[in-house]
Amino acid sequence: MGVRDHLREIYFDNSATTAVCRSACDKAYEVMYENYGNAASLHSKGLRAENEIITAKKTIAEMLSTDKNQIYFTSGGTEANNLAVFGACNSRKKLGNRIVTTQIEHSSVLEPIKQLENQGFEVIYIKPDSNGHISEKDIFDAVNGNTIFVSIMLVNNEVGTVLPVLSASKAIKQKKAPALLHCDAVQAFGKMNVKPAKLGADLLTVSSHKIHGPKGVGALYIKKGVHLTPLIYGGEQQSKIRPGTENVPAIAAFCEACKEINLTNSNEKVFALNERLRNHLNEIDGVVINSPDDASPYIVNFSVPGIRSETMLHFLAMNGIFVSSGSACAKGKPSYVLTAMGLEKEIADSALRVSFCKNNTIEEVDIFAEALKKGIATLARAK
Amino acid sequence: MGVRDHLREIYFDNSATTAVCRSACDKAYEVMYENYGNAASLHSKGLRAENEIITAKKTIAEMLSTDKNQIYFTSGGTEANNLAVFGACNSRKKLGNRIVTTQIEHSSVLEPIKQLENQGFEVIYIKPDSNGHISEKDIFDAVNGNTIFVSIMLVNNEVGTVLPVLSASKAIKQKKAPALLHCDAVQAFGKMNVKPAKLGADLLTVSSHKIHGPKGVGALYIKKGVHLTPLIYGGEQQSKIRPGTENVPAIAAFCEACKEINLTNSNEKVFALNERLRNHLNEIDGVVINSPDDASPYIVNFSVPGIRSETMLHFLAMNGIFVSSGSACAKGKPSYVLTAMGLEKEIADSALRVSFCKNNTIEEVDIFAEALKKGIATLARAK
Repeated sequence: MGVRDHLREIYFDNSATTAVCRSACDKAYEVMYENYGNAASLHSKGLRAENEIITAKKTIAEMLSTDKNQIYFTSGGTEANNLAVFGACNSRKKLGNRIVTTQIEHSSVLEPIKQLENQGFEVIYIKPDSNGHISEKDIFDAVNGNTIFVSIMLVNNEVGTVLPVLSASKAIKQKKAPALLHCDAVQAFGKMNVKPAKLGADLLTVSSHKIHGPKGVGALYIKKGVHLTPLIYGGEQQSKIRPGTENVPAIAAFCEACKEINLTNSNEKVFALNERLRNHLNEIDGVVINSPDDASPYIVNFSVPGIRSETMLHFLAMNGIFVSSGSACAKGKPSYVLTAMGLEKEIADSALRVSFCKNNTIEEVDIFAEALKKGIATLARAK
Repeated sequence: MGVRDHLREIYFDNSATTAVCRSACDKAYEVMYENYGNAASLHSKGLRAENEIITAKKTIAEMLSTDKNQIYFTSGGTEANNLAVFGACNSRKKLGNRIVTTQIEHSSVLEPIKQLENQGFEVIYIKPDSNGHISEKDIFDAVNGNTIFVSIMLVNNEVGTVLPVLSASKAIKQKKAPALLHCDAVQAFGKMNVKPAKLGADLLTVSSHKIHGPKGVGALYIKKGVHLTPLIYGGEQQSKIRPGTENVPAIAAFCEACKEINLTNSNEKVFALNERLRNHLNEIDGVVINSPDDASPYIVNFSVPGIRSETMLHFLAMNGIFVSSGSACAKGKPSYVLTAMGLEKEIADSALRVSFCKNNTIEEVDIFAEALKKGIATLARAK
């Protein structure tokens, strides 16, 4: 089956996607090859496939301290976010007209909201400060009694800031808004404690491929009693909230990846990587760190003014080091997150994102720092 | 990795889902474990993943005699059908108000259309005859100058009838209708020649898990120049027609499954299986074959009046033989396809679907026939 060559490659782009862990790969293979039934089939082969789904729902529900019946599988974070946005707003449009979100949400939240704005919803996009923080006060000011939907991510995917989701929940209560609160927790799940009930979230998105599970599967937590209009219509699967033949191999493999998570161990390791990287970056002349100190340790966004992101990214890739210039989903477009933070164009155009996973090492951070210095010397000279 | 025990199990439910072929399993594993990059990432690891997608698009496009840029990956047939229905009707609603389809489409076509009907579209549902055939004349009568969308499947999933898609294309031209023609080819792809251009289809759905590829991936062919409103919004992937991190392992594995297809060989084998089964069924007293003679050889729907579908299905499953009572997606609800065909309740309630793949054998058909006879004797006695 081939071997991952960790000696040749340093993968620091874990917020874009992660290497699938061995147990998840094995599980996906086993389900594809042996347990290939359709979970909706009435015979025992269908039942066996369905059991994989039930186990996965239980595992994910436990991580979120909720019940398995609140977990709905989707094809990934993008679909889960779309289902949350459209599903909530379409089911509540008679109750009010305001949507509240932030300027730094993922495009799979912002783009559906823009569609609703075009349809006549009033949308408040809360601006971050220069560190990427969203203020509690701005949330309270934005939410009013006419608000039917609030979407706030837990950890920003480009700079790693942690957003005050609980404040949105408090604001909704205080303003007596008929709003559902959605939290895009894709960059938080498996990296910090994520409990929808503690956040006050009615809807919460998680994704498999950000936590060493396979691509093609995510889940939306839907609080008990909350009704969403479906995004996709068809068969009887998943209470008709998300019909279509369930992606059993990916769902079962997602479950395996969840089982491998050990928050305490991972976070300890990644905090050390983060500290080491920041120490290196602070010692390199001209480098500016864009992620605030209190950001998720998994993400460090920084700029090397004068050297465009893509140029440095390709230099590093040629040296077997993989980072990103922002969100992978933006395919090289200027970062709207850094722009919203009010960063100067030169800083935004030279931004790089290092995103860690538990398998990265201090040695890799040191090699990266050397390569970055070499890149700065080479590319600055080349100008 | 475990072994499929063909001695113990007879899988005759291939229209619900198929066993994933070894090469597809291997490819999915390889991509998950080694080539795990995000296809949207700018670095070489992203590019390597993107190349898998390009290869898959080319392979599928070749099978459809079209160009790779006309292939858009989705999470499966259900999503592709939803994208076709909503995408076409929402983009064309200013041009007319009529939708034409049949009563025997898959639920992932019918349910989105029902949503549009609730929103005010006029929908003509063409009724099949008692053999499950849709008449050309009925299509011509249904399509008028106000028609913006026609959806006709190529092969029905429950009884296997082949529908006159080309007639719909002719009707649209003759009536000068501003309509897009969608064809759900999920049960036809890989089992007969499917060429959207020859069918006159603007949109055509295919699915991986019906042809020994993994679950969680399908594709929509979109004719060059045809504009669809997206169903899901987000990043820049797939020209924004279907954003979200591409499911590279499943897409690459789908491609491998496509490469294994040999229409001539498979069809020859399956024709023989079909003939053998029909001969057996004709010899069993009281059995009624619901699939017409000219149906796809891959599907044989028949009834054992007096013994409920679920009862016989479970009897067979206990003997290691897997068939279905209709569409897996319906989870045991009465078949709307058989009802639309005007079959008596007793026939519809006792219907079973055998669906073949190229890996089934004559010996399996013979064992099945014996088991069915035993089932009839046992279950009729038990009543």
